[in-house]
Amino acid sequence: MDFKSIVAVVGEDFAAVDTFIADSLRSQVPLVNEVGQYIVQGGGKRLRPLVCLLAARACGHREGDDHIRVAGIIELLHTATLLHDDVVDDSGLRRGRATANARWDNPTAVLVGDYLISKAFQLVVSLRNITVMDIMAHGTCVIAEGEVLQLINQRDPATTEARYMEVIYGKTAKLFECAAESGASLGNTALQPAFAAYARHLGAAFQIIDDVLDYTSSADVMGKNVGDDLAEGKPTLPLIQAMKLAEPTDAELIREAIRTGGLEHLEQILELVRSSGALDYTMARAKEESDLALAALADVPASPYRKALEDLTRLALARNS
Amino acid sequence: MDFKSIVAVVGEDFAAVDTFIADSLRSQVPLVNEVGQYIVQGGGKRLRPLVCLLAARACGHREGDDHIRVAGIIELLHTATLLHDDVVDDSGLRRGRATANARWDNPTAVLVGDYLISKAFQLVVSLRNITVMDIMAHGTCVIAEGEVLQLINQRDPATTEARYMEVIYGKTAKLFECAAESGASLGNTALQPAFAAYARHLGAAFQIIDDVLDYTSSADVMGKNVGDDLAEGKPTLPLIQAMKLAEPTDAELIREAIRTGGLEHLEQILELVRSSGALDYTMARAKEESDLALAALADVPASPYRKALEDLTRLALARNS
Repeated sequence: MDFKSIVAVVGEDFAAVDTFIADSLRSQVPLVNEVGQYIVQGGGKRLRPLVCLLAARACGHREGDDHIRVAGIIELLHTATLLHDDVVDDSGLRRGRATANARWDNPTAVLVGDYLISKAFQLVVSLRNITVMDIMAHGTCVIAEGEVLQLINQRDPATTEARYMEVIYGKTAKLFECAAESGASLGNTALQPAFAAYARHLGAAFQIIDDVLDYTSSADVMGKNVGDDLAEGKPTLPLIQAMKLAEPTDAELIREAIRTGGLEHLEQILELVRSSGALDYTMARAKEESDLALAALADVPASPYRKALEDLTRLALARNS
Repeated sequence: MDFKSIVAVVGEDFAAVDTFIADSLRSQVPLVNEVGQYIVQGGGKRLRPLVCLLAARACGHREGDDHIRVAGIIELLHTATLLHDDVVDDSGLRRGRATANARWDNPTAVLVGDYLISKAFQLVVSLRNITVMDIMAHGTCVIAEGEVLQLINQRDPATTEARYMEVIYGKTAKLFECAAESGASLGNTALQPAFAAYARHLGAAFQIIDDVLDYTSSADVMGKNVGDDLAEGKPTLPLIQAMKLAEPTDAELIREAIRTGGLEHLEQILELVRSSGALDYTMARAKEESDLALAALADVPASPYRKALEDLTRLALARNS
């Protein structure tokens, strides 16, 4: 199945999530509406809500629209973190469009992000579902810790693969996990741990691929600049592994680039990341994570929803943007 | 009663709130601990938790420690907004100490603020009290909207008193309201609306006084710089009223100062705010709000707790820092 066919498995629900998000963003304060709409319409693939919907359906959830609400809340939380991430990283471009901090300013992006977090909190509470509340409440703490941990690692060439994995678990995998776990909790709760594990590994694979693409893709395809991570001194897995594999003087060049940030040695470092075998290693780690994701679904009864989640995992690994 | 005597009415509970906050801030991520402790220990008077504790006791809440938890959550939310406010306003000084964004940097202040919001959310959910959840969930949305509204008003000399009141209701009064309402909800729920109204007006009075002090106090006493609001182009009530009362050319000077921000004409504007009668008008508005706060308690049974809340209102009006 390609992405379109996967979406089609929960087609109506997927469209309903967008309506729910648009309705939720209506505020009395015009700037909140404007920025909220701008960011949410900026799009992205809505992967996290998709995972949530498929998990809910795969677990037999059939009644009502709580799965749509939960999926929408997940996307609102994701949007809030994007707003703040772009402030923190001083990013100007996301998905081919100006970021909110670039189009408006940092104060607007910080405060509208706060509004989205609060709104998500309010919507979670309005579900009156204590399991979902616990998942989201714990999840947002882990995500926030992951973001702070990423900040600590920044410009630190001593960052290990273990610390890198801790960061991507927090900043990316956890929200995927929340999406699948809360979706699953609406149906057969015995399957919750399987879906949590599935999405945790899917999210990790997704982020590792993201970090590879930062060195291999192009601005046209990605909608953001190549080498952004290097420019910000972020020690992602391709760099961590290249430092291990490269000759000492080359490794020192990478260490220095992480310490200082900037793109002065981009071409040389791109070449080192490729020639050292660091990219192959990183791709293999992503493959391991996606295999673990698939394995987690082993005991889940077969269904078009499970099949869609499996295919989504393969697509996430093969993507180029 | 002076402030110390008011605190003594709930002395043990008040100390327990600090312990609860310190425990809640323990994170696996050292930077989160460090910044969190720094800000919370930076102090402030813990007015909001105090109001929460007194409201809970005045409403007959006696069993367990939910009032301490709720009061602590309120202070965590307050701390999170301070962290983000200081980023938004680019403030360097608060309560006589460097702000987190000044001591660390903006990314740290934004992300640790996000952690505190998430942590507060998690603690609210862990109370398993749907009334408190609703109060907090709705409250944080109103607060976030108030912050965005303040941003819209900034550098806009056409800001009316009504728009100013809307901002201070959102950014300040609402959290006082949440504190008193959630505290009251732990006891005699019939009294909830009275305490909500009390704290809403107390919070408004408190903020109006704050905005007066920005023109009349000194850095030594306030622990922040005089004229901060003017420097940021914030049309607070002293300026809004001075524009109404002053001669056309003087009013135009104020308008221009709001449009551009900065302290170029601070002395002249201080003089206009004083001589025009704008400060007297603003103080009278604060008095009105504090009278409304006291009136809201009229039907609350007499108790040392009610007395303490009344005296707190008088102190808030008379404070000079």
